Amino acid sequence: MLSKRSINSGSISLLKRYKSTKSPSSKVKTTSTTTNQLTSQIGTDQELFFNDPVSQGSTFFQPNGKFIFETLKNFITLQTLYKYGFKQVETPLLFKKDLWEKSGHWKNYKEEMFKVKGYRECEEHEHNHTIDASAEEYSLKPMNCPGHALLFKKQLRSYQELPLRFYENSPLHRNERTGALMGLTRLRKFHQDDGHIFCRSDQISDELKQCLKFLDLVYGKIFKFEYELEVSTRPETNYLGELEEWDLAESSLMNILKELGKPYTINKGDGAFYGPKIDCKIKDNNGKKHQVATIQLDFQLPKNFELRFMNANNEFEKPIMIHRAILGSIERFMAILLDHYKGDWPFWLNPKQVAILPIKTKEPKFLEHAKKLNDFLIKGGKDCEDDIILRKDYHFRSYIDSRSEGVGLRIRDNITNSKAGYLVIIGEKEINENKYSFRSSKNREIVELLTKEEIFDRLVKLEDSFE
Amino acid sequence: MLSKRSINSGSISLLKRYKSTKSPSSKVKTTSTTTNQLTSQIGTDQELFFNDPVSQGSTFFQPNGKFIFETLKNFITLQTLYKYGFKQVETPLLFKKDLWEKSGHWKNYKEEMFKVKGYRECEEHEHNHTIDASAEEYSLKPMNCPGHALLFKKQLRSYQELPLRFYENSPLHRNERTGALMGLTRLRKFHQDDGHIFCRSDQISDELKQCLKFLDLVYGKIFKFEYELEVSTRPETNYLGELEEWDLAESSLMNILKELGKPYTINKGDGAFYGPKIDCKIKDNNGKKHQVATIQLDFQLPKNFELRFMNANNEFEKPIMIHRAILGSIERFMAILLDHYKGDWPFWLNPKQVAILPIKTKEPKFLEHAKKLNDFLIKGGKDCEDDIILRKDYHFRSYIDSRSEGVGLRIRDNITNSKAGYLVIIGEKEINENKYSFRSSKNREIVELLTKEEIFDRLVKLEDSFE
Repeated sequence: MLSKRSINSGSISLLKRYKSTKSPSSKVKTTSTTTNQLTSQIGTDQELFFNDPVSQGSTFFQPNGKFIFETLKNFITLQTLYKYGFKQVETPLLFKKDLWEKSGHWKNYKEEMFKVKGYRECEEHEHNHTIDASAEEYSLKPMNCPGHALLFKKQLRSYQELPLRFYENSPLHRNERTGALMGLTRLRKFHQDDGHIFCRSDQISDELKQCLKFLDLVYGKIFKFEYELEVSTRPETNYLGELEEWDLAESSLMNILKELGKPYTINKGDGAFYGPKIDCKIKDNNGKKHQVATIQLDFQLPKNFELRFMNANNEFEKPIMIHRAILGSIERFMAILLDHYKGDWPFWLNPKQVAILPIKTKEPKFLEHAKKLNDFLIKGGKDCEDDIILRKDYHFRSYIDSRSEGVGLRIRDNITNSKAGYLVIIGEKEINENKYSFRSSKNREIVELLTKEEIFDRLVKLEDSFE
Repeated sequence: MLSKRSINSGSISLLKRYKSTKSPSSKVKTTSTTTNQLTSQIGTDQELFFNDPVSQGSTFFQPNGKFIFETLKNFITLQTLYKYGFKQVETPLLFKKDLWEKSGHWKNYKEEMFKVKGYRECEEHEHNHTIDASAEEYSLKPMNCPGHALLFKKQLRSYQELPLRFYENSPLHRNERTGALMGLTRLRKFHQDDGHIFCRSDQISDELKQCLKFLDLVYGKIFKFEYELEVSTRPETNYLGELEEWDLAESSLMNILKELGKPYTINKGDGAFYGPKIDCKIKDNNGKKHQVATIQLDFQLPKNFELRFMNANNEFEKPIMIHRAILGSIERFMAILLDHYKGDWPFWLNPKQVAILPIKTKEPKFLEHAKKLNDFLIKGGKDCEDDIILRKDYHFRSYIDSRSEGVGLRIRDNITNSKAGYLVIIGEKEINENKYSFRSSKNREIVELLTKEEIFDRLVKLEDSFE
């Protein structure tokens, strides 16, 4: 029999990260209410997202916000799948009580989950079917791990198939109290870049190394955050699994961190009872720290779900599971970035990348010249209307500002308030030469006269630089 | 007061498409049980998806199936956003009873929706919070239109902003009876390429034209289906809205179809009471017809939600709403394709695009040469491990078959059973020349000796041709 504590597996620990006030993450200053007020203000000003009493805790993403969300999601998904060898899967959102009983959530986290009635209350006109009582109790999933365990279990797995890495970013739901909800930070509906690695014990080391490299790619190279790593080791007592598994796992962890030359602190005995873990905290522009990524070894969930694979000696063996998320909650990470950049987005995330300003806003030839560029940038650098959009095409977030205001005022407004990344000005000269005056909103000194193709190429380079 | 019938708006009609036995679509032979058995068999053989009693009616997509699903979804999303000017948004999955009462679903479709309890049943240990009774009744959304109406309503809209086109493919849930569930065709959880256009009456014509062009792009050019269009016109009595609105809408419809030279049939008086519509039926390889896309004008939902925009005379006016989906349910469309291709996928949708077969399966140099190509194809044509995956990169579904069987047997197995699109054979010669023998699985005559870069370029062209 499992004790109440023993079911508290990796998945559940991930769940608690977002709410516990006693976890290690609470030692650092976390996102405050003030931050959330700022976040909400920028969210409103830039038309990114809003909340509505009709569904508290679930975000309405307006087009600009959805663009940022999708850009982050697509970026992390591409790296996860094609650089780090995960396989994308999709599992249901609704699961019957059975599954949650097996995973331990029903007993311990029942109140965290939205309960769903699976039967029909009314009879239909045409068919007199009876109530489907067996379907009575569902819950909306708060995490993906049990679904991934079922996917693993669906086929007979050989040692040669491992490591098997599943990735999913389906919406997750957690029934937070109304009073606890906050901006994008504490939500009832959110998405993770959620991955689970099923591997042999001799593969733990390589897998962790890859996870750490991934961390470094994202926080070091792309977002250029300072970050800290913390290793939490085996508790003195009440740990699960074999001592030798722990020793192997811990020494793998330390060796890898040394090998990569990464400074880290040790929280001795502070690991979860099911396995050691590495947490990553980033420091934003305001000096505030946020716990983001986590990498957790789990010897327990594979036991609960009786997972196994056929080893080289044709014997069944239990795989080890690694829970890992690099961004964590994508909504929450977006809130951190909002706070970090204060709405002044880097080019690749800016929902207002290019403002196109015709000097004369009433003359058709000015507007046509503006529209020609705008369409070209949005539609992937294509002129021909019959072209199909291909996956390799780039599409920029450009827009025309033809309000009947002086161009000077519009330039200032697009820089200061809209926070456009680049400006394009269209005067007589530009029309006559079939070119455009192009400048960064950060630098008024350098204005270049470019064709629309040249501008497009320039923007592709900017986007690919993640600056 | 609205009568029970009058709330039966466009959104609800879309809902009924998937279940009604009395809709026009039932006149044609629709997907049969036999089809679904075949679909399920291919689904199992190719490891695409499965169902499990733990969540009946919600698909578990394995990596191969998720690949096909994502490829379809991304293809249609790219065209929708960047060719047809929709803006991607995201709205919650859970909505309170209020919303469904306003939209009319609560009264008429209560039993179709999953009811969700929004309050907590238990008290937490740390906080003695009370039950949040106001949050008591939620439903999982069966469609996106009410959410999009709220997004429209969030801001004051000007006539210059219209047409405003929202696109979303969030998971939708409909509480189908267990006995009605079938493969990928009738599900409780599914996704649509769901778009809503909010426009002025003088824009209806252009918008419908674009919808029809989109239809033609997808079914004519890409999938090369024969398809039929049906126009359903104003009912004799019991229609809503102004006669002139109907006349304008219907004549727009007919004129556009004539202009585009598209044959169509008319179902006189068979339109919905809220507006005329165009349905599209495709004919698959087996001669079976399937209703897929729909384009519906709706004068009603904007009334229910009191939507308005400021017209050129500074007066408020009600927009017209067009509900449209090109693929419809993406899961259902995938089932149609499964049936149509019988598992023999075109290259761009094939989850097994390239099988790499080293002739000698025990010698490391053979396996290394295979791995070099495999990594190159999967990781986007990159050798350098430090590269970040960019959005323009291509990633092919290649795999190594190094089972200890003769190469002849493996070739046959990969062609016949795995239905690999292309084969790569690696012998001594290939290793010595640092090249690969490359052939289509459809043609054993033409075998070319190519570098990995040449193979990559070849595959990019294949993928972009949608063949």
